[in-house]
Amino acid sequence: MNTEASLIDSALRGWKANVDRTTKLFDALTEEQLLEQVAPGKNRLIYLWGHLAASSDALLPLLGLGPRLHPELDSIFISNPDGHFQNLPTGAHLKRIWNEINDALWTAFSNLSSSDWAQRHTAVSEEDFKLEPHRNRFTILLGRTAHLAYHFGQAKLAQQR
Amino acid sequence: MNTEASLIDSALRGWKANVDRTTKLFDALTEEQLLEQVAPGKNRLIYLWGHLAASSDALLPLLGLGPRLHPELDSIFISNPDGHFQNLPTGAHLKRIWNEINDALWTAFSNLSSSDWAQRHTAVSEEDFKLEPHRNRFTILLGRTAHLAYHFGQAKLAQQR
Repeated sequence: MNTEASLIDSALRGWKANVDRTTKLFDALTEEQLLEQVAPGKNRLIYLWGHLAASSDALLPLLGLGPRLHPELDSIFISNPDGHFQNLPTGAHLKRIWNEINDALWTAFSNLSSSDWAQRHTAVSEEDFKLEPHRNRFTILLGRTAHLAYHFGQAKLAQQR
Repeated sequence: MNTEASLIDSALRGWKANVDRTTKLFDALTEEQLLEQVAPGKNRLIYLWGHLAASSDALLPLLGLGPRLHPELDSIFISNPDGHFQNLPTGAHLKRIWNEINDALWTAFSNLSSSDWAQRHTAVSEEDFKLEPHRNRFTILLGRTAHLAYHFGQAKLAQQR
């Protein structure tokens, strides 16, 4: 494997490891447990799961991989804070969506070449990209991996109670 | 910038962004606030800070960049859980150590080439590395960035109270 391919491989392993541990944590929770807050007055577990699902779904168009699968998640889990809506999707429903989104991402990720990863993402113009070449797909992948880990760390606090 | 250099640049930016937001969060806390738990029964903020400092310090030998600067942190912040020792270092002391470790890492990181990053880290043998070439410096960098984000997410819960 050449250096470029090796660097991409590391990042994809990091993404996958964070998706997998997040999946494992949420999968093991009951619908009742998903309604618990991660700390007093903080987001509920179900909200964090939906927030991560919406955030990952948004990667599809951001990375130029295809249209959103579940844009309906944004109003509930991104644009509005936890508690804004009375009824959230069930854990069973989120589980299906979460797996669907992650399968789509993983398939698409596996088809990108090293140079594809170093190309601009769709939220930056060609002109801006010349000035800021770090605004590429790879930076987004790494940032979203950290985002996953950030909220996984929070969810972990509730899981261990 | 070629593709390899661009991928490394993204990862170093990700590391730095996570260090910087962690620094900013902890720097703003008083000694009293640092003794608060991130959630009931969970680690105190001072423990998370020390844990991250010890973890980052350990990167120096792991990545072959030099000896530990503060191996004394491990007993307090890695090998033993929060609450094991009566007296922890003060926030003022940890702040100095944290900055010292991060400055040393950043200088060393900046001197590594793309192919240096794709080389094995010191905890894997040459033989094992042939079978598992992903056990390289870059994988460690990405993993530790996620580790930083994981605990930063937890610390953030306490900061916003």
